[in-house]
Amino acid sequence: MQGFRDLSGEILKVRNEMVSKIVRVYGQYGYEQLETPAVEKADAIGAYLPDVDRPNSGVFAWDVDDELVALRYDLTAPLSRYVADQGSNLPLPYRRYSAGPVWRNEKAGPGRFRQFWQCDADIVGARSIGADADICMMLREALLEIGLKSNEIAIRISNRKLLNGILEIAGIDPSCQRSGLITVRAIDKLDRLGLDGVEDLLGTGRRDESGSFTQGANLSLEQQSLILDFVRLASEGGNQLENARSLVSGSQIGLQGIEEIEQVFELIASSGASDSFVFDPSIVRGLGYYTGTVFEADLVDAGDLSRSFGSIAGGGRYDNLVSRPGGQDLPSVGVSIGVDRLIEFLMSRGCADKQDRLERMVVVTVMDKSQLAGYQEIARELRASGVRCEVYYGNPRKFGAQMKYADQIGAALAIVEGGDERTAGEILIKDLDVGRELSGLVSQEEWKSQPQQVKVSRSGLVPEVLRMLSKS
Amino acid sequence: MQGFRDLSGEILKVRNEMVSKIVRVYGQYGYEQLETPAVEKADAIGAYLPDVDRPNSGVFAWDVDDELVALRYDLTAPLSRYVADQGSNLPLPYRRYSAGPVWRNEKAGPGRFRQFWQCDADIVGARSIGADADICMMLREALLEIGLKSNEIAIRISNRKLLNGILEIAGIDPSCQRSGLITVRAIDKLDRLGLDGVEDLLGTGRRDESGSFTQGANLSLEQQSLILDFVRLASEGGNQLENARSLVSGSQIGLQGIEEIEQVFELIASSGASDSFVFDPSIVRGLGYYTGTVFEADLVDAGDLSRSFGSIAGGGRYDNLVSRPGGQDLPSVGVSIGVDRLIEFLMSRGCADKQDRLERMVVVTVMDKSQLAGYQEIARELRASGVRCEVYYGNPRKFGAQMKYADQIGAALAIVEGGDERTAGEILIKDLDVGRELSGLVSQEEWKSQPQQVKVSRSGLVPEVLRMLSKS
Repeated sequence: MQGFRDLSGEILKVRNEMVSKIVRVYGQYGYEQLETPAVEKADAIGAYLPDVDRPNSGVFAWDVDDELVALRYDLTAPLSRYVADQGSNLPLPYRRYSAGPVWRNEKAGPGRFRQFWQCDADIVGARSIGADADICMMLREALLEIGLKSNEIAIRISNRKLLNGILEIAGIDPSCQRSGLITVRAIDKLDRLGLDGVEDLLGTGRRDESGSFTQGANLSLEQQSLILDFVRLASEGGNQLENARSLVSGSQIGLQGIEEIEQVFELIASSGASDSFVFDPSIVRGLGYYTGTVFEADLVDAGDLSRSFGSIAGGGRYDNLVSRPGGQDLPSVGVSIGVDRLIEFLMSRGCADKQDRLERMVVVTVMDKSQLAGYQEIARELRASGVRCEVYYGNPRKFGAQMKYADQIGAALAIVEGGDERTAGEILIKDLDVGRELSGLVSQEEWKSQPQQVKVSRSGLVPEVLRMLSKS
Repeated sequence: MQGFRDLSGEILKVRNEMVSKIVRVYGQYGYEQLETPAVEKADAIGAYLPDVDRPNSGVFAWDVDDELVALRYDLTAPLSRYVADQGSNLPLPYRRYSAGPVWRNEKAGPGRFRQFWQCDADIVGARSIGADADICMMLREALLEIGLKSNEIAIRISNRKLLNGILEIAGIDPSCQRSGLITVRAIDKLDRLGLDGVEDLLGTGRRDESGSFTQGANLSLEQQSLILDFVRLASEGGNQLENARSLVSGSQIGLQGIEEIEQVFELIASSGASDSFVFDPSIVRGLGYYTGTVFEADLVDAGDLSRSFGSIAGGGRYDNLVSRPGGQDLPSVGVSIGVDRLIEFLMSRGCADKQDRLERMVVVTVMDKSQLAGYQEIARELRASGVRCEVYYGNPRKFGAQMKYADQIGAALAIVEGGDERTAGEILIKDLDVGRELSGLVSQEEWKSQPQQVKVSRSGLVPEVLRMLSKS
């Protein structure tokens, strides 16, 4: 089905290993696993959608027992619903991680899927700025744990209050659907559209190459100029934080943003991990619910923060999204890692652990249907020694098909016990990696005379297989 | 939402560990992981539904792009769709395992959920009876691997051809919706409804205690009597296989069933694992698609196969369900483990691995907001030594709330560094397990004078924490 994938082989191995490393780090920081169902009541999801104009677009929703339900769109909405359900039973701050699929009813395209994985950690009920810094440092540690180098990671940090200060000075209400949200989203698109694209979106709108038109924020020229000054900060050199401070000097909320950014960077500096972090005023995060610290992690060309391979994680502080049943807001910070994009990167770099020959399959061929018990006994003995081993249960009459099968599944060895061997108490072991160097399939007779096979006594089988698998 | 659960804590730990042990065994037998999406086209699911009268009842289905899609109902339908998609690219026999949630749009009740986990292994394109025996033995090994004893497992085996022989003799068409399927399902319910209940269902029907009526197969008295003779086999002593053979002596298909059962038991006997296996003619599996070997695994009172705690796995051979795009049937055998019921059993027995004190949390309390960097440094040092450690990021003003939090999350130790300690270069470590024995919360002053705390030099912190966590 369009937008949905079947996963098998290498990609799952990489994902399983990567996710288990990430959540191990989350666990060390005190986060506990939470698994919520795939299905939620649609009204629990609404507030988290990026496009509040069309509350149910973007999600897969349908009716159950006359109630609209939906597949979860992210892992934050279910967290919020869970916290509300738990009420006062939940010790605060509550740290949880979740890793799993989310679903989006969007147009599928190359690299754009309708089911994909996220791996989130959030701390709920934590007002301290320490939590903001902690989660940024935890993200770095998780990325290092999966094999990235610290100079390949750029965690770009800013603060929504800084942006809100700019909006305040420009006379734009950040909560206003038209001017506020469109402006935030326009800035969020700087890396993709460039300054000109952002300028179009701040004005009347932008028509992309496909001809489709995106409505703009319709700001006045003066407002546009203020916002663009702010956006330009990111591409200019000098002391960006000081320049930002000057820009928002007239706004209390803006200056509070500057102060929080400084606090986060001080805590990071104390940890000695500053090399992966950078202040970047263009980081605003498109989602409406962030209220303070915002950050994105990019993969960058070793050491050059300006050359990015794309964002692989993001998050920030959201103080008004999660609440107790009584209505008390629970200040929260979270991070979400885009699992699939990271897998793609790790696989493209080939840094996934190479498969050990000891983990490769051994196929026991079936030369005589009446001897199945004996072939199964061979497989049992090998498995008991830690070898992955299977008996061929397809049609055994064509020996060539058995060898072709063993070759296709990438088996390392094939085991053969025909009538002659059994009479002599012997077994043939065929090294398929050597065999792969010879071309084509050969008849049983030809194959038996080839050099890549070893003949051992039945009792010597297991040690010889272990020896052959241990050879590189 | 009704029928959906949030999972956290112990149950997830047990599940993660259990599933990883099971799939490790599957992997040793040559099965490779396959992960299909949660969403499938509804027409790919239809044939697998238990109730073909109402093809879309039982599934969560909705329209996407004018096409009916559904959440997967089991893991077999997606496998079948995957094999068809792969066409001739797929080396056969194809062994795959899948573990994950499936969804059923059924009435939720105690222990009945609308999202639950299965852990399946299937071999596709394997006509050999060796595959049937292999998968039964693999199931036993997986159950042993997760901590069950061999005398706690009863894998009850029969064969659909035996049943089909009985139906043939009774003049019932097994593929007939009314008489055939209702008869099979009636026999399948023997353990739940007893002989009388089955008899009602073979006749006009059965009204249960709630008053709801289930339509019967409307068999003639002679037909009923034949079927009941067969069903009684299971509860009678003697050589059940010989008795079954007599019952189907007039049916070729029935005798073939007997022969296959014998072959499976011979192969199992060769493995020396016979103790967990038993022939049980009442095992028929309700699903329509089985064609040969069928089996169910029960948890039983140690050694007494007749005292069952319920079925936790099942499977069998289905030779006409999966096919190549051209239409060629691929004979297959599969097993499905009901993950949630097994978890429940393991947890009720308390055989889940106890949490190591070394894996428990250490909470660094915040006595002075301006010293966050120092508290984070303490947490970093402890984590670097393998200790799970978090800093308290809630409101730090109430020290009692911090201690209460540490207690509620089950932390082992709390770390305290106030102004006095910092000046003296010292740290307090509080053993919360000792503290839990004292009741109630105390003021900071009282708390400091209590005996369960240790004072160490700042540099002695990590070794002392490790020492305290290592105490049982």
